[in-house]
Amino acid sequence: MEFLENLRSGDSRFLARALSAVVERAPGAAGLLRAIYPATGHALVVGLTGPPGSGKSTLVDGLARAYRLRGETLGVVAVDPTSPFTGGAILGDRIRMQAHHADPGIFIRSLATRGALGGLAQAASDVVAVLDAAGKDRILVETVGVGQDEVDIIQLADVTVVVLVPGMGDEVQAIKAGLMEIADVFVINKCDRGPEKLEQEIKAMLALAPSGAEADAWGPPVVKTVATQGEGIEGLTTVIAERVAWIEAHGGLARHRARQWQQRLRQFARDRLAQRLLDPWLTEERVERLAESIATHGTDPYTAVDALIQQALETSLQ
Amino acid sequence: MEFLENLRSGDSRFLARALSAVVERAPGAAGLLRAIYPATGHALVVGLTGPPGSGKSTLVDGLARAYRLRGETLGVVAVDPTSPFTGGAILGDRIRMQAHHADPGIFIRSLATRGALGGLAQAASDVVAVLDAAGKDRILVETVGVGQDEVDIIQLADVTVVVLVPGMGDEVQAIKAGLMEIADVFVINKCDRGPEKLEQEIKAMLALAPSGAEADAWGPPVVKTVATQGEGIEGLTTVIAERVAWIEAHGGLARHRARQWQQRLRQFARDRLAQRLLDPWLTEERVERLAESIATHGTDPYTAVDALIQQALETSLQ
Repeated sequence: MEFLENLRSGDSRFLARALSAVVERAPGAAGLLRAIYPATGHALVVGLTGPPGSGKSTLVDGLARAYRLRGETLGVVAVDPTSPFTGGAILGDRIRMQAHHADPGIFIRSLATRGALGGLAQAASDVVAVLDAAGKDRILVETVGVGQDEVDIIQLADVTVVVLVPGMGDEVQAIKAGLMEIADVFVINKCDRGPEKLEQEIKAMLALAPSGAEADAWGPPVVKTVATQGEGIEGLTTVIAERVAWIEAHGGLARHRARQWQQRLRQFARDRLAQRLLDPWLTEERVERLAESIATHGTDPYTAVDALIQQALETSLQ
Repeated sequence: MEFLENLRSGDSRFLARALSAVVERAPGAAGLLRAIYPATGHALVVGLTGPPGSGKSTLVDGLARAYRLRGETLGVVAVDPTSPFTGGAILGDRIRMQAHHADPGIFIRSLATRGALGGLAQAASDVVAVLDAAGKDRILVETVGVGQDEVDIIQLADVTVVVLVPGMGDEVQAIKAGLMEIADVFVINKCDRGPEKLEQEIKAMLALAPSGAEADAWGPPVVKTVATQGEGIEGLTTVIAERVAWIEAHGGLARHRARQWQQRLRQFARDRLAQRLLDPWLTEERVERLAESIATHGTDPYTAVDALIQQALETSLQ
């Protein structure tokens, strides 16, 4: 297939166009994604998530450098509104992005978290598929692990790294609790601030986890880094490699990914259903009229939306 | 209607049961919501959002006290995983919740942010509708303003308060940018830490906003608080009242709410469509089989999901 050949040629302009097509859901994007899917599965996807201010971007940057030095080609997908690759970039911080700009072996794509109606997880999934089909050896996905959307995104990763920092206060406890179940690896970044208390907390939480029952279960290790100094990055790549080796030894990547797909499939199907059936029907004018009627109590939102869905269904099947 | 009478009787056990029914989408919940909708619209809904650690919960607590002192009845909806009302409560911090426990004039309901598949915004909307129909004068909705889900939730508020704190670092810039467009009021909490720099930044951002074109446009004021000391809470209630007065003078609340519904209706319809059509079809077994097939490249996710949707459509219309 000529398209796939172009995609794998290393021509980053072609890759950029293909990514824009899938993100903007251009006509033909669905066919493109279908066509490239058999060529996916080569890349190892590493997700990094954590609260704002935990230094994820710097860590992603450090990991990218480390993998590039080993000759791996890389895709970076940034879906973190607090990342300099995305939101930060809007505000002028393009420094790190520029540092990689001259390197054709690394391709960075950011995704805006706002305005991607219900489709951010799918957009991220599609972008990863294209980068994978383009032959990238490794794909780093950066997201801020707070909302449900963001947790959905990180489920496309083969290995999930949760990044925390010391001294973020008690409120971060709850975030940790929410991220605990998806973490394969914990990073304590900025650990020059004294990581002991946080490390103890993480280990205490892990000790409570039910998965510890199996004798050879994976226990998420805690890696200490100072990403701004490059400290601990090598250790992190080692732990990620160990996690991949563990997966290979316990059923293999394909089975691991099948389990991930079980988690993702419902949202994936929801998004596609809405795109196909509802979005074409929900014109500006129709939405405006309905909103008016609901706000003035001419109808209730449940009756109004059910009628709308019924109409959309009947129209789509005519 | 007897049900509505019970709901308005002030019996909090009845209210609690009604809320659980809508959150868990019990049979009859849809009918319940339809039936109570005409009785909604009385409550004034104030949303509070901001990054983790900004002290939103303490502020909500302070606002609740202030409104209770004026004799208003209150509903509090906490959808913030970092809030002591929700996630924090799981971890043992129930102190503030208990402080209100003896007061029948305030009703607190928390919503878990995880596991509410695509439906968190709708769950929040439904909970607010029930509290509104139950006769609460004011409803405070607390959420963490980072993900898209959380921004969706806050759009049900009549007045949106964005809470920030000094010294959260450059990464918070981007969050501010994302929240800027939805803010009616800014609060700089913990302003004993020196609010000047943050205040300048907010004002600089607001000066760039396009909405400033109209002569009598609402310019979001900046309120300084130290919520743990109760400082600035009265000032915040005043500013919220001013915003409501401004809305009343510029088209009224109904028109304001119609505009909010325009923003929310798409997601609302998406959620309902998925609940009706897709969720019954997506059995565990079916999801498992599909995930396996996708992960082993027996099919691609797009073809698989489209086939699934087609089957669900045909079944639902038989």
